Amino acid sequence: MKTLSVSHLLGIKYLSKDDIDLIFETAEHFKEVINRPIKKVPSLRDVTIANIFFENSTRTRISFELAQKRLSADVISFSAAQSSVKKGETLLDTVNNILAMKVDMVVMRHSSPGAAHFLAKNVKACIINAGDGAHEHPTQALLDSFTIREKLGDVHGKKIVIVGDILHSRVALSNIYALTMQGAIVKVCGPKTLIPKYIESLGVTVEPNLTKALNWCDVANVLRVQNERMEVNYFPSTREYVQQFGLNQTLLDSLDKEIVILHPGPINRGVELTTEVADSPHSLILDQVENGVAIRMAIIYLLASKIK
Amino acid sequence: MKTLSVSHLLGIKYLSKDDIDLIFETAEHFKEVINRPIKKVPSLRDVTIANIFFENSTRTRISFELAQKRLSADVISFSAAQSSVKKGETLLDTVNNILAMKVDMVVMRHSSPGAAHFLAKNVKACIINAGDGAHEHPTQALLDSFTIREKLGDVHGKKIVIVGDILHSRVALSNIYALTMQGAIVKVCGPKTLIPKYIESLGVTVEPNLTKALNWCDVANVLRVQNERMEVNYFPSTREYVQQFGLNQTLLDSLDKEIVILHPGPINRGVELTTEVADSPHSLILDQVENGVAIRMAIIYLLASKIK
Amino acid sequence: MKTLSVSHLLGIKYLSKDDIDLIFETAEHFKEVINRPIKKVPSLRDVTIANIFFENSTRTRISFELAQKRLSADVISFSAAQSSVKKGETLLDTVNNILAMKVDMVVMRHSSPGAAHFLAKNVKACIINAGDGAHEHPTQALLDSFTIREKLGDVHGKKIVIVGDILHSRVALSNIYALTMQGAIVKVCGPKTLIPKYIESLGVTVEPNLTKALNWCDVANVLRVQNERMEVNYFPSTREYVQQFGLNQTLLDSLDKEIVILHPGPINRGVELTTEVADSPHSLILDQVENGVAIRMAIIYLLASKIK
Repeated sequence: MKTLSVSHLLGIKYLSKDDIDLIFETAEHFKEVINRPIKKVPSLRDVTIANIFFENSTRTRISFELAQKRLSADVISFSAAQSSVKKGETLLDTVNNILAMKVDMVVMRHSSPGAAHFLAKNVKACIINAGDGAHEHPTQALLDSFTIREKLGDVHGKKIVIVGDILHSRVALSNIYALTMQGAIVKVCGPKTLIPKYIESLGVTVEPNLTKALNWCDVANVLRVQNERMEVNYFPSTREYVQQFGLNQTLLDSLDKEIVILHPGPINRGVELTTEVADSPHSLILDQVENGVAIRMAIIYLLASKIK
Repeated sequence: MKTLSVSHLLGIKYLSKDDIDLIFETAEHFKEVINRPIKKVPSLRDVTIANIFFENSTRTRISFELAQKRLSADVISFSAAQSSVKKGETLLDTVNNILAMKVDMVVMRHSSPGAAHFLAKNVKACIINAGDGAHEHPTQALLDSFTIREKLGDVHGKKIVIVGDILHSRVALSNIYALTMQGAIVKVCGPKTLIPKYIESLGVTVEPNLTKALNWCDVANVLRVQNERMEVNYFPSTREYVQQFGLNQTLLDSLDKEIVILHPGPINRGVELTTEVADSPHSLILDQVENGVAIRMAIIYLLASKIK
Repeated sequence: MKTLSVSHLLGIKYLSKDDIDLIFETAEHFKEVINRPIKKVPSLRDVTIANIFFENSTRTRISFELAQKRLSADVISFSAAQSSVKKGETLLDTVNNILAMKVDMVVMRHSSPGAAHFLAKNVKACIINAGDGAHEHPTQALLDSFTIREKLGDVHGKKIVIVGDILHSRVALSNIYALTMQGAIVKVCGPKTLIPKYIESLGVTVEPNLTKALNWCDVANVLRVQNERMEVNYFPSTREYVQQFGLNQTLLDSLDKEIVILHPGPINRGVELTTEVADSPHSLILDQVENGVAIRMAIIYLLASKIK
């Protein structure tokens, strides 16, 4: 049986192209499973997984929980609001305590970049990074690529533009690693203040003009606007953002070509996408959500085979 | 096999008398099931249900969750406090995202009248309304009627008074639909300011005097006082409410007949009911709670048979 | 089959030495179970358990939930923040409502001493006390003794010092009952203001000097400092506490003997224990956590056999 080259999923940066291919192949199988009447397999009856979310996230948490239930794993979930973290306990103590209860795998979201890394170095369990600050969100990038591949046949050679706040986005960073590794050509497009200076060192180019970017690309992956950041002075206002970087139907109709649109959700309708665009046949947003469960099943299944 | 005339449970208003009979017949079977040592049936192993509560509710949520577990369904629950709704997402986006993860049925409580309807029109899933603002709370009305029928043999021809804040109560409205459809004679009794003007158009009469109402009825369904509303000026004060509309043992002893008492819970002891009354043999409150699980099992089971 | 002398676990005070022996014997079996690849037994498929936590507790709640899942029980969990208690419902109504849904066992944490007792007297269900105010925390004391016995062969005759805020600690009180019943010799050590006057009537002695206490004991059970209490005037400041009652490696190295250290968690690193001590081989903290699941499985299993 083929296995991953890693024992944790900390970031796309640590995966090989073969790893990604294996995850996609396995996810295709699980996508069939979850479209059958009985959507479950008994594969992980002997695995206990803890979901530890130090930041709120409905959709990622539910997607992971469903993936785990479809695999018949035992699941323990908790969020920081309920946790001993409030009592001043360290991250390491919290996790070591959970693990001492015979937990095999930890899915963690945390606001600090590197938190998943730190755990993987310091505890004896398989760690899956469900988002660590502005660093990586590897399952999101994998489901994005899987959705592109499903729709366009391959990621290799495709032109992809990532639109929005590149500077603060773990989705952008993980996507850049995943897409370039698979041979896509990647541009980023967003307000100058939200494009980090080192971005070209990652093998991508910058296109400040949205119309030009869309006329060039096959796929636009549109990031969520973090309204809470929009108050800061050096940012564009929401109105300016919508005018320069919002996707609307008129803009899409003016293109010479058809493109497909991804968005990690939740959407701010009327900001990064108009309702018309979000609900159009070009939008793959709900495919991404469906594929998210299959991708997470694949990752959990493949990593579980390494701990047994 | 007999089936319901509807594909969703949005309100009692949309059910037929035959639907109600079928739900009760099915609930009788499930009531036997949950009184056996093994309280589970494997019927819905292939059904995934999401409980989405935009308003808090311990008892309704737990009753639904237990009903789902007794039927062996896969269950995903979340409350608004944890959800993307806080990030400004629309109701439709939230639910469509859940559904894209291959969820078959949604149980929703929401503060807006019509929210369940809106969902049923706009998403592809079976919707169960667990309370939508001041509009309907159909499972509560069904378990109330089921409890009356169990105790008194039939609902047809019985005299039932609903006591309290009729204006703001989804329990009252759903009960009026359910009871009149089954041929009960219904009166409402409460402060004049809390009886809506259109109430007689629903086939019920108003009796402002509690003693007269109780002397007339076979069943008193006593609504919960919403203390948070009691601060508003045009309301009676809690003290006035208790004096005019609170049930106490002296009042019950003064009646020429025996009546039974329902209450949807949670009780404000000493306000709408004294402790003595709440705990007396005339009170069917805990029967209602027990029957709630059986009724919800019946509804979920019958609706699930229509999606397969 | 041997059974417990009690039908509830309200406190160590109500157990016999034979009960404790039976719990330990059963827990040894379950500790083997949770160290096998398949960590589950189907024993309690016909038991439904409600976890009702009126005070937050990640670790105790997760430990109970895992114990219940390992036994294949059906589990319903909720915390006060979500509950009808906020709507002014009484404890008795909340619990009776849960029980009417055919729940067999209630695990409850509550801030009032005696809350579990009150329930056991007034409802028809098996009650497990998961902590009631400053009164008892019996499962913690049982897992502490089980861990000492596992490490030192026996509790009988061993010298044990409990260090910290004895006055407000349910862990201290339950430990004193459990340890003296098993024939251990027990001292308490802490700030004079935090040692209750009646303490010697419980068969323990007071040693105000930490170095002397450690030089005497085989086991130090170090309580968590409740930082929220530390602000009160008559308390030592945190700095004073650390100087007089904090355990550090230099102090341990200065002893003539080797001792083992327990702590109920979560640890305030640098306050009651330094990081070096908490992570040293003398610390049994993670053994306690692991044993907690086995002990809770044993208690639930033995009490469930009495309700069937």
